[in-house]
Amino acid sequence: MEELPGALGTSPSLVLRLGQAIFASASLFFMCLEIEFYSYTAFCYLVTIMGLMVPWSLTLAVVDGYSVFVRHLPPQARVTAIIVAGDWVLSFLALAASCSTASVADVLLKVGVPYCSAKLCSRYRLSAAMAFLSWFLSLVSALFNLWLLPSL
Amino acid sequence: MEELPGALGTSPSLVLRLGQAIFASASLFFMCLEIEFYSYTAFCYLVTIMGLMVPWSLTLAVVDGYSVFVRHLPPQARVTAIIVAGDWVLSFLALAASCSTASVADVLLKVGVPYCSAKLCSRYRLSAAMAFLSWFLSLVSALFNLWLLPSL
Repeated sequence: MEELPGALGTSPSLVLRLGQAIFASASLFFMCLEIEFYSYTAFCYLVTIMGLMVPWSLTLAVVDGYSVFVRHLPPQARVTAIIVAGDWVLSFLALAASCSTASVADVLLKVGVPYCSAKLCSRYRLSAAMAFLSWFLSLVSALFNLWLLPSL
Repeated sequence: MEELPGALGTSPSLVLRLGQAIFASASLFFMCLEIEFYSYTAFCYLVTIMGLMVPWSLTLAVVDGYSVFVRHLPPQARVTAIIVAGDWVLSFLALAASCSTASVADVLLKVGVPYCSAKLCSRYRLSAAMAFLSWFLSLVSALFNLWLLPSL
């Protein structure tokens, strides 16, 4: 069977997974560091989802790395189906989280200083942007694996 | 070829499309009627997306209705691919819009009266809930049509 670049066990997939993990970690970093993020539901939700995204992406990055550098793992239908399902669910959740965070940051900036200083709001926005990038890479991974699925 | 319930041209699909159009219209109704929704980006975004969702769903409902009640239309690969793409894009946009609206309504309720009375906030929330239901039905349609696609 031909190998599809971007599907599980290839080097583009490794790059995608590392990108997801890095952007999700950056989003967590900007949201959590010295901020009381738990006063807004949307921010707690973002932290939860990014906290799921990081281990998920890192685990699959390890599998990809093993397949690329150590021993090639042939794709299996059942494993790929589970990964596609997980990717789709996580990508929907990540999109919802990043959009919620971005719009809450927008409203807080409008409402003004007692709720959000300019510095704080820009950090919320950066966090939302990183979550959005992580969502995008996760969607790309999900699409590649979904494309591979019928041929297994 | 076997007919897949939920794919274009079947009666379950007609029900799904009508549901999408009704929920999207309800979302628009709760958001627009006597409210100055354009002061928040998230609400403008919701109105835009639901304003796209209504004609899209109604058009496909008409096609389904024609296929069910007048003359059966066999599914075509190219048409189905376009509909799947449109459904996926609209469903992502609708998810983003409903989550943004819900989280903005949540923050406005927290911030309090000058920005949002209790009655207004409950309308924002209802609007977000309707948009969420519309997203869900749109996702179901997209999944059914995607399932049908490889067999065409």
